[in-house]
Formats: sequence, structure tokens, C-alpha cells
Amino acid sequence: MRMVDLIAKKRDGETLTKNEIDFMIAGYTKEEIPDYQMSAMAMALYFQEMTTEERVNLTMAMVESGDQVDLSDIEGIKVDKHSTGGVGDTTTLILAPLVASVGVPVAKMSGRGLGHTGGTIDKLESINGFQVELTPEKFNQLVNEQKVAVVGQSGNLTPADKKLYGLRDVTATVNSIPLIASSIMSKKIASGADAIVLDVKTGSGAFMKNLDDAKELAKAMVDIGNGAGRETIAVISDMNQPLGYAVGNALEINEAMETLKGNGPEDLYELCLTLGSQMVYLAKQASSIEEARQKLEDAIHSGKAIEKFKTFVASQGGDTSVVDEPGKLPQAKYVVDIKATQSGLVNEIIADEIGIAASMLGAGRLTKESEIDLAVGVVLQKKIGDQVSEGETLVKVYSNQEDITEVEEKIIQAYTINPEKTTNNKLIYDIIQ
Amino acid sequence: MRMVDLIAKKRDGETLTKNEIDFMIAGYTKEEIPDYQMSAMAMALYFQEMTTEERVNLTMAMVESGDQVDLSDIEGIKVDKHSTGGVGDTTTLILAPLVASVGVPVAKMSGRGLGHTGGTIDKLESINGFQVELTPEKFNQLVNEQKVAVVGQSGNLTPADKKLYGLRDVTATVNSIPLIASSIMSKKIASGADAIVLDVKTGSGAFMKNLDDAKELAKAMVDIGNGAGRETIAVISDMNQPLGYAVGNALEINEAMETLKGNGPEDLYELCLTLGSQMVYLAKQASSIEEARQKLEDAIHSGKAIEKFKTFVASQGGDTSVVDEPGKLPQAKYVVDIKATQSGLVNEIIADEIGIAASMLGAGRLTKESEIDLAVGVVLQKKIGDQVSEGETLVKVYSNQEDITEVEEKIIQAYTINPEKTTNNKLIYDIIQ
Repeated sequence: MRMVDLIAKKRDGETLTKNEIDFMIAGYTKEEIPDYQMSAMAMALYFQEMTTEERVNLTMAMVESGDQVDLSDIEGIKVDKHSTGGVGDTTTLILAPLVASVGVPVAKMSGRGLGHTGGTIDKLESINGFQVELTPEKFNQLVNEQKVAVVGQSGNLTPADKKLYGLRDVTATVNSIPLIASSIMSKKIASGADAIVLDVKTGSGAFMKNLDDAKELAKAMVDIGNGAGRETIAVISDMNQPLGYAVGNALEINEAMETLKGNGPEDLYELCLTLGSQMVYLAKQASSIEEARQKLEDAIHSGKAIEKFKTFVASQGGDTSVVDEPGKLPQAKYVVDIKATQSGLVNEIIADEIGIAASMLGAGRLTKESEIDLAVGVVLQKKIGDQVSEGETLVKVYSNQEDITEVEEKIIQAYTINPEKTTNNKLIYDIIQ
Repeated sequence: MRMVDLIAKKRDGETLTKNEIDFMIAGYTKEEIPDYQMSAMAMALYFQEMTTEERVNLTMAMVESGDQVDLSDIEGIKVDKHSTGGVGDTTTLILAPLVASVGVPVAKMSGRGLGHTGGTIDKLESINGFQVELTPEKFNQLVNEQKVAVVGQSGNLTPADKKLYGLRDVTATVNSIPLIASSIMSKKIASGADAIVLDVKTGSGAFMKNLDDAKELAKAMVDIGNGAGRETIAVISDMNQPLGYAVGNALEINEAMETLKGNGPEDLYELCLTLGSQMVYLAKQASSIEEARQKLEDAIHSGKAIEKFKTFVASQGGDTSVVDEPGKLPQAKYVVDIKATQSGLVNEIIADEIGIAASMLGAGRLTKESEIDLAVGVVLQKKIGDQVSEGETLVKVYSNQEDITEVEEKIIQAYTINPEKTTNNKLIYDIIQ
């Protein structure tokens, strides 16, 4: 078998067999197939279709290119959740203890990553003493006993995907639905999930700017998951403004705790219940979505959810007193109110710009080596649809630097305030299964 | 400027500017742009259109990537001829002295190359003493004095094209009309041609199997040439059977001399007159194609053409006695007649198979290091449309090996003999300017 013939086959719109895809991915991982052939293939894939079978085969070939997490010692159906990424997305911090509190085992591997804020692992490190490194035995034991544990990624998962993603990034082949879908799904499957709930974001702050693309990606991932024997459901949710109010590491921990106590922002709460119901249902801890949702609402209102958060933090060595005394989380030196320069109705908050503002304060990593400032970030006071008067606070900035002129400019630019309502935002656009 | 943005631009069907193309080709030549980005670009170019301006800019960027032959010391309009390649294509050997004999300066650089037989340079080395290496001064002097000289390629012409062609070969991006056209044209322009006559072959033995593709390639090259200020004309000619009778190095020298004497195969003679008339016309040595053709016919019938061949051979140190005594050319040990196994009309001769037969005898190079056997090859005795009786000779094989069983099989397979005429071959399909 020769890679050049496989490129020609795909270039001409033909279907690659499982053998051919295995040959390609194994050869690429072992560096027997050079980057210049793989990038030509990636561009051919950009222009030509891939059948669902090809996508499943590609995904599984990438799963098999490296280590796979073995969660078989954990009882029950392990449901993983994945978000395609947005600004202020605190859902994992809430969902892990929330669904665990109703009996769903949550064995979560999470990354640090680059972005406007740190990853889930970074955020959890805002809690004094919290350990994100656990042995596989300890991890499995905790999930069996407490139903929840979160660890940093370890092992050599999906090396083919890492190599291919790096290559796509510099060859203008990132924007291919089959390639995006198999990249995401390979990581989830290699992480040991039995079932997967996807949160596909759409809007100005998301990778998928328009709804049709988001639906196509969601459908592609659901088909791959189901084709690979992992029951998969996708929720398509809004990212035309940041989710919730807080964007920042410790600030999001605080917001997550508030949500688990029943005092969270409305959109964040609603999205967590929507995603959580699907997780509980897929884990067979409820016989319908409605029953699942009821269980989760009960868990929040009875205090079971925030109790589970406490247990989770305690069992990973963290200081649980932050739950009742959030002031013990890392605090920024300066809190500055950014005020509206005009009156009217908030019609737009460009999520990316708010993210960049948080990043400028030091909440995120620009390179793998960057240090994150866990204390800093922004907390929105006004969201789309809110009435605002000139001089009223739009955003509270938590900063460790005194001069925040540029951050303020970014935030003012992110907000569009008009006399009348011009947009009609929705939170949940669709559920695809 | 970043290469990844240029790939994205072309991927999305946009037009690259001259600056962008220059950046890309210069960067690729200097190895600042890696193969994996260039191969993604090549695949994007495969799927997206290139405007004529882009094609001209790409061609000129490749011309400027290396040395350019300076023919400015040679008087007159230098017209080059290029064939897209076929089996038994002896036209260069005939056209160089033929058009020189009517006053057109022919400053020909020619390659050795891989193929069924050697290149023009190899064929000329069949003549004892013939020197294919000349200093640029000697080369220019000969063309000024004798109107004709042929040298082997030297200098670092179009290194970008060499690199890109090598990459396309292993990334399934060879079959792109704009890339093929600019590759060919860049070499011609870097070789110093003022005007160019192209012989685009079509048929089973050609790279372009069907007429529409051949026309598209011809049009693309003509547009590039004219766009780059080099008057260009393309003749589309048949390659559904070998051209002429001889396929082999010394055998083709002999056939070229016969044609220059007026005794050549009808198709080879006609194609040479068609291409030659265009060359004479573009060199402004005739005011019409008809006048040009008349001059060439006169040159052949008056003996001027074969005389010019003699002068040309003599001035490059070759033994001119071969002209009157072709027996002095390298001779094969064995001459074997391959006989028809049935009677009927020749309806097909698969040119590639005949070429492979010649190659199996040792007439061509399989790798750059292969030695060529100048004496061997085949001479067809029957061509399409000829009547043949069982037992009559189809092909004479000139071999230095006694056992030619496999060669014979190839030849028998190449011929289709039916009771009736089933094909209607043409020699010249179109002239595109």
C-alpha cells in the first residue's frame, strides 16, 4: 500500500477502507508517512466527503495510535461531557459533582490548555491543597466510592490526533467537519467514556459561528460516537455572549459553587440542567430526560449537589472551607467597575473580546509555559436583554495590575447598547441524537 | 505574510496576488516554507481555479527561482519547441536542422531524462564524436554561425519547479492543468526562448488521454506564454500509436536523417512540417504559415535540410559520414522479425506498450544511473490502417540479447488486428494560439 495512492483515491472522491485508514494513521504516527503527504491528504479531505464509516474508522485508528484509559474497574456507565469551547464555560465544574450526586460515575480527565482562562484542572487548583495528580488506582477508587474524581491528562493519548492537529493548524485544514469531529471523538473514546454528551457551541464566541455548521458538526460527532458503540448526544447551545457572569479561574469556581447552591446565573444553570439530564439519562440513572432533570433539580435544592462538591474537593485534598467562605479563594488586589457610557438595552456582548480582556489580565495562557493568575478575571453585571443606564456598572474587573485602561477599552467595545431590542437570543438551539 | 493564510485563501477559491505568489515560491526555494505547507497548497490548487494572471505569476516566479539562460547574444527570434512526450517522438532531431536551414536560430537545450528511450542528447550521442557539452560562448557562436546547436542542460534552471514537481509526484497533485502548464512553461522561458511552439500529444500513449484535456492544457500553456510576453502556439497531435516507425536511440537518428532526406514516415514528416511552419512563422522568417511550409518542403527536397544536419553534426564534433553510411551508427547484434498471428487491418497499436518493449531491450533509463543501449529498439513495419497478412512482419526488433520472448509478447499484445476498420485516426487535431 502506498500513501500517494490513498491521497489520489480520496482526491477523486472515493471511499477509503478501514485497512487503508489504519495504514495511514499508523504510518503517520510512526513517522513512516511524512507530513507533506498527510497535509495533502488533509486538504483532499477538506474538499471531499467522508462517509460515516470512514469517520468512525479514522477516529478509532487515532484512538488506537496511543494509550487508552481503562475505566473497567469503575462500576456503572461512565458518561463524559465535552464542550467545543467558549468564554466563561464553567459547566464541567458544576456537572461533575451535580450528576455524581444522583449516582452517575464521573471519571473526568481534563486538560490545562491554552485559552482565555485556564482549563478545569487550573480552575480547581484555585482551591488550596487540591490535588490534580492521582494514581489510576486512587482515581478509580475515588470514582467508585464518591462517584467523582477529576485528574490532569496523563499517558500518551491519541498521538496521531496531536500530530495531525498540529499539521492542520499550519496547513489551513482545521475547518473540516469530519476532521474536527474525529479529533474530538478520538480523545473522548481514548479517555474511556462509555457514553458521551457533547455541548456544541454556536455564535460569535464559538468556533462554529453559525447554527448550520454547529448542527453539522454535532451530527458528525453523534454519528461517530454511535458508530463506535458509544451512545452520544449533542446539545447545541448559544455562545453569542459569555456563559454565566464570571470569566476567570477562581471567579468561575465561585460561580460554580453558587450554581450548585441554586444561586447561579440563569443561563449557566439551565445549560447545566440540560446537559446533566442527558448525562443522567445515558448513564441509566433515570428512565426519561424529565425524570433526570427532576433528580438534578432536587439535588440542587436539597443541598445534595453542593455537599457532593465538598466531598469531591475533600477527597482530592482540597480545602472545603471555601464552599462556605469563598473569600478564601485567591483574591485580586484591585476590583474596578467598568461603567456604561450610554443608556439602553444590551444587544450584544462579543464573547471573544471579553475572553481577551480576561486573558490580558493574566487569567489564561498564551504559551504552554505561561503562568496563570488564578485570582483575576471579569464578572459581567449585565447580559444581553438587560436594561442599563449611563454610569451603571457593566462589568467588574478583578485585577492584580493597577492600570487596566486597555482591558476597559476591550470591554466597552465588546458591549453594544442600543435604544431598542435588536436581537433575540436563545440558549438551547437543538438536541441531536 | 504567512503561508498558512495563502493556503486558506486559495482553498477558499480566492486569487493570489503576484506578491503572494513570489513570497510562496521564493520561500519554498529557500526552504523557508516547508514541504507540508506546499503540498497542502498544491492540493488546494488541484481543487480551485487559477486565473491566467496567477498562472503567469507562478510561472515567472519559478523562472526567477534559479538561473536563466541568456541568449541575447544570438541574433534573431529564438523559437523553442516542446513536446509533452510520446513514443517514438523524433521531431526535435528533425526540426532543429530543418528550421535552421531556412534561417531560424535554434539554440536548443535538451535533457536526458527517464523514458522508453533516451532524450535528444542521448540520441545524438549515437553519432561518434558528437559533443553535447559546449561553453555558453561556443554555443552562442555556433547558433550565430550555423543557426543551430544542441547542448545538454546545465545551470540551476527553475529549482522551484524541480522541488515542486518532486513533491507533486508523491502527493497525488501531478494532474493539475495549471501546475502542469506552469511547470512546462517555466522551463521553456528560463531556457531563453523568445517564442514557443508546443506539441501537445493526445491519445492512449500520451499523458493527456483525451482530446478535451489536451486542448485545456494547450490553451493554458498558450495563455501563460502570451501572458509572459513569449508568443506561443500549440499543435495538438495524435499519440494513439507511436510516431513514425522507429523507437530507439540510433534507430531514431537514422529515421530523422531519412526524414530530412525526404524519405521519412508520412506522419512524422507531416507533424514536422506542421510544427516547423509554426516555428518559422513565429521567428518571422515567413509572412504566412503557407509560405513557411513551402520553405521547409523546399529545404527538404533541395537537400538543404540534410546538409544543415551535416553541418550541425560536424560543428559539434560528430562523424558526418553516418549521413551517407547509416551503418556506422551503433548496430544491435540481433534483428528479429515479429510476425502477425492473424490477417486483417491494424486498428490499434498501444504506444505505451511499444515503448515498454523498447525499454525492456535497454533503449531507455529506469533510474538516473541506468546505462542506455544506443543500438537497440524497435522499428514498426505496420501502422494503424495498414493491411496485414498472417505471418507478415509487424515489427523489427533490434536487440543485444538473444531471448526476446517477453518483448515479442508485449508487441503482439500492443497490436489489435481486426477484419475491418474500426478506428479513424487523425494526426493533427487542432492548432491553438
